[in-house]
Amino acid sequence: MDFLVRIDTTAFYELPEEQRSEVRDREWVRGRELHEQGILRRLWRLPGQKGNVGLWSARDGDELAQALESLPIWPYATVEATALARHPLFDAIEGRTDDVGLKATPGTD
Amino acid sequence: MDFLVRIDTTAFYELPEEQRSEVRDREWVRGRELHEQGILRRLWRLPGQKGNVGLWSARDGDELAQALESLPIWPYATVEATALARHPLFDAIEGRTDDVGLKATPGTD
Amino acid sequence: MDFLVRIDTTAFYELPEEQRSEVRDREWVRGRELHEQGILRRLWRLPGQKGNVGLWSARDGDELAQALESLPIWPYATVEATALARHPLFDAIEGRTDDVGLKATPGTD
Amino acid sequence: MDFLVRIDTTAFYELPEEQRSEVRDREWVRGRELHEQGILRRLWRLPGQKGNVGLWSARDGDELAQALESLPIWPYATVEATALARHPLFDAIEGRTDDVGLKATPGTD
Amino acid sequence: MDFLVRIDTTAFYELPEEQRSEVRDREWVRGRELHEQGILRRLWRLPGQKGNVGLWSARDGDELAQALESLPIWPYATVEATALARHPLFDAIEGRTDDVGLKATPGTD
Amino acid sequence: MDFLVRIDTTAFYELPEEQRSEVRDREWVRGRELHEQGILRRLWRLPGQKGNVGLWSARDGDELAQALESLPIWPYATVEATALARHPLFDAIEGRTDDVGLKATPGTD
Amino acid sequence: MDFLVRIDTTAFYELPEEQRSEVRDREWVRGRELHEQGILRRLWRLPGQKGNVGLWSARDGDELAQALESLPIWPYATVEATALARHPLFDAIEGRTDDVGLKATPGTD
Amino acid sequence: MDFLVRIDTTAFYELPEEQRSEVRDREWVRGRELHEQGILRRLWRLPGQKGNVGLWSARDGDELAQALESLPIWPYATVEATALARHPLFDAIEGRTDDVGLKATPGTD
Amino acid sequence: MDFLVRIDTTAFYELPEEQRSEVRDREWVRGRELHEQGILRRLWRLPGQKGNVGLWSARDGDELAQALESLPIWPYATVEATALARHPLFDAIEGRTDDVGLKATPGTD
Amino acid sequence: MDFLVRIDTTAFYELPEEQRSEVRDREWVRGRELHEQGILRRLWRLPGQKGNVGLWSARDGDELAQALESLPIWPYATVEATALARHPLFDAIEGRTDDVGLKATPGTD
Repeated sequence: MDFLVRIDTTAFYELPEEQRSEVRDREWVRGRELHEQGILRRLWRLPGQKGNVGLWSARDGDELAQALESLPIWPYATVEATALARHPLFDAIEGRTDDVGLKATPGTD
Repeated sequence: MDFLVRIDTTAFYELPEEQRSEVRDREWVRGRELHEQGILRRLWRLPGQKGNVGLWSARDGDELAQALESLPIWPYATVEATALARHPLFDAIEGRTDDVGLKATPGTD
Repeated sequence: MDFLVRIDTTAFYELPEEQRSEVRDREWVRGRELHEQGILRRLWRLPGQKGNVGLWSARDGDELAQALESLPIWPYATVEATALARHPLFDAIEGRTDDVGLKATPGTD
Repeated sequence: MDFLVRIDTTAFYELPEEQRSEVRDREWVRGRELHEQGILRRLWRLPGQKGNVGLWSARDGDELAQALESLPIWPYATVEATALARHPLFDAIEGRTDDVGLKATPGTD
Repeated sequence: MDFLVRIDTTAFYELPEEQRSEVRDREWVRGRELHEQGILRRLWRLPGQKGNVGLWSARDGDELAQALESLPIWPYATVEATALARHPLFDAIEGRTDDVGLKATPGTD
Repeated sequence: MDFLVRIDTTAFYELPEEQRSEVRDREWVRGRELHEQGILRRLWRLPGQKGNVGLWSARDGDELAQALESLPIWPYATVEATALARHPLFDAIEGRTDDVGLKATPGTD
Repeated sequence: MDFLVRIDTTAFYELPEEQRSEVRDREWVRGRELHEQGILRRLWRLPGQKGNVGLWSARDGDELAQALESLPIWPYATVEATALARHPLFDAIEGRTDDVGLKATPGTD
Repeated sequence: MDFLVRIDTTAFYELPEEQRSEVRDREWVRGRELHEQGILRRLWRLPGQKGNVGLWSARDGDELAQALESLPIWPYATVEATALARHPLFDAIEGRTDDVGLKATPGTD
Repeated sequence: MDFLVRIDTTAFYELPEEQRSEVRDREWVRGRELHEQGILRRLWRLPGQKGNVGLWSARDGDELAQALESLPIWPYATVEATALARHPLFDAIEGRTDDVGLKATPGTD
Repeated sequence: MDFLVRIDTTAFYELPEEQRSEVRDREWVRGRELHEQGILRRLWRLPGQKGNVGLWSARDGDELAQALESLPIWPYATVEATALARHPLFDAIEGRTDDVGLKATPGTD
């Protein structure tokens, strides 16, 4: 199941330089792990804003909550998650499958 | 360049049944075209809401504006587009390329 | 997985009396079905407001979207769904189970 | 009488680790008490957010106010309570009773 | 139990003159009844606005919902009700009683 | 002339315990005075919220401003005042008088 | 007592041309009367917006409500009135007087 | 003096095709005139939205109001104008002049 | 050209008593100067709120910006300025003149 | 591609005087560089507000994000960027070109 997740990290930028650097290092490690597990699908910056918007996939709200709270930046973040559902146009284009997520077959996406 | 686009189609549902059906047929044809051109990357429903949220890619704001206004449903839609930028974590994961978009190599995404 | 769902039915009250009565009859039949399937868990009115707030359970966002769009009142409704996650305090009280929902054992709830 | 209560605990996460731990311990004790008294009916997390949404039952606004202010986390919380009313569809499903709350008879809920 | 209720009647003013007059007559009759029952405690206009703000007393959210929906103007109204609780300063001034509402003893109010 | 006044006291709860206690003592004294002068007519808590909503009566905006700024809690409060006007339904019920305020004659209110 | 009043007249511009012209004629007559009575002190347009912002003076909320509802445009207007109070800086500049309003002595204003 | 002006033209798109075409023709003529007079400096679309955002220059609020109300599309538009002021960084870059507006000297802008 | 200016001074009230007193003294001196220059036309308190709403006149946005930033309280203030335009009803009442501002002829205002 | 960018710098004004001066010096140097690169096209103050609104041009969201984050004031700023698209009226006036931005030919702009 997909979620659109908006993470605001304004409070993170108020930390002392050293602490910020340490949290960011751990954040990148954790981010890679969540990406490899297929939970953190993709992340974008919003130009000039402190934070990001991302596409996340999880079994349900519980798994998403655990993933978000496992982020080293979470104590300094404000998070808003929106549940998504498949769109019939894309079911028609891709063929309906049980697999939740971005179609990765080269050439069709 | 990626855009997050929210399309509200409440006004579309106030059309007479027949007109709605005709617009929807053309919408699906146009949606497939935009998908094949790599502009309409992916679309989701928000459960229970009339409308969708989507990931769009365009050369710039001009190309995006033309794509959105070419939708048969556009006269009955309220649209909000947000410009996105690459996130350094994903540049690191994927390797920075000039190609904007979802990485489609099987096994890494 | 639980969802908190707010349904505003202002537009429903602008229908002619007869049509409103016909939609309401079908709504009650469909509401009972969704309740028996364990999807529509519970519904409340907000005093004086046109609409309701409810607790819904579904496998994921797709099943929720289908349930909400199957409501006869849906064409005249504005819907907002919020994904929920289990709370650790209630995991501790009830014991963690795979069953999503309201604990129904008499005496403990 | 049921209430939907949204509790935001962002300020709680700005406390020192030790104090936070002490408040949380007392919160769980008080939460269990309120649950056993039938006042705190159920609690959910909103994925990624600091806080919770819950279903509370109280005789009136006074009893609810006293319960909420008795929470050890209350000085660090922002609370919004919404009064609920029975929905006629659920009166019909369950049979109207004077008992306010979730129907706990196994097999019907 | 007291409630602060805001009623917006913009849609009422879009009715034809004759229908508006007929609804208003019934509204005044019903308003007097609710006042005599002690449910509609007091009503104010907000200068220049279409609607009113009022102080209502009801046993719980159910009784309030029934009272509000019984208003002839209800189909054309947007209503927002806020649950109130006693304030300790006024408990001290008036002496705590089980009676909900405005203290009517001459000389103390 | 009546005013509906919403006072948010979140900042008050961030004061040290001792100072808070001292301000509250003075607040109660001043609250009683304003009540005896007929300016502070009645006060309610909003369940769980830090602050109150009240019904105030003053000759005009100047007298109201002076009364509100005289509150010991004022430096730590956010205040929003809404001007009210008599409602014709209540003029009819009570008979129009020059006296602004709650009718206190036992048996009619 | 002064009030800041915002009047939105979007609905007025949806009337047929002829009716709009007739209402506007009566509006100007009534506006002059209220100005001569010292109630409508001054009116401004907000560039490009349909409506106006004005400075009104009235004995209290009741007189203001009556003045606003007497406007021929009132049925097509959305109104928001804010109560004002004298500012100590201007009391010092002008000398405190019982006269509410704009100081009209030539050379000092 | 510069103004940032947001014009929403949703209501324009609800006109019949023929009328819309006639209004648009006149709009383009008037737009060119205002551009040649140096009042309408530049206009942008917001991708997918019905309306535009523009940079306008006028002697004061009166001239801006007259220009905006002279647009053939004005009866169907919702307008919001924001007053702008010169920025010291650009005064330094360009040299302060009495001329309000975009610096047009080739090579420096 | 007239502007409606809302100044919120919540941050000012968080200064130490002594500094606040010193800033206020300078504010009154500067306020008188701006009033004598005809820029600060009039100021009101909003009952109970920290701040004021005022009517300002300036040649353009630049002059207004300079006046507002010259206030000793400016570093602790949040300011919102709205451009105003003459209203045709008041042009008719007063006769159109090039003079921007409040008409001060005794007996007509 | 053009962007409308709103930068709020309230947090910057809470820095100690000395640090603020140092950041401002670097900001002006960087501002000039971005202007010379054609990225920062123009900047305005909003009268009385802490911050600015600007017209920026960048190849895409990535280049804009890098430019904004390179501002020395960025850590103390809240930024909101809106993607713009060419307007057909201005394409007609200027002739469509590949050059994004303000037309600088003297006499036509």
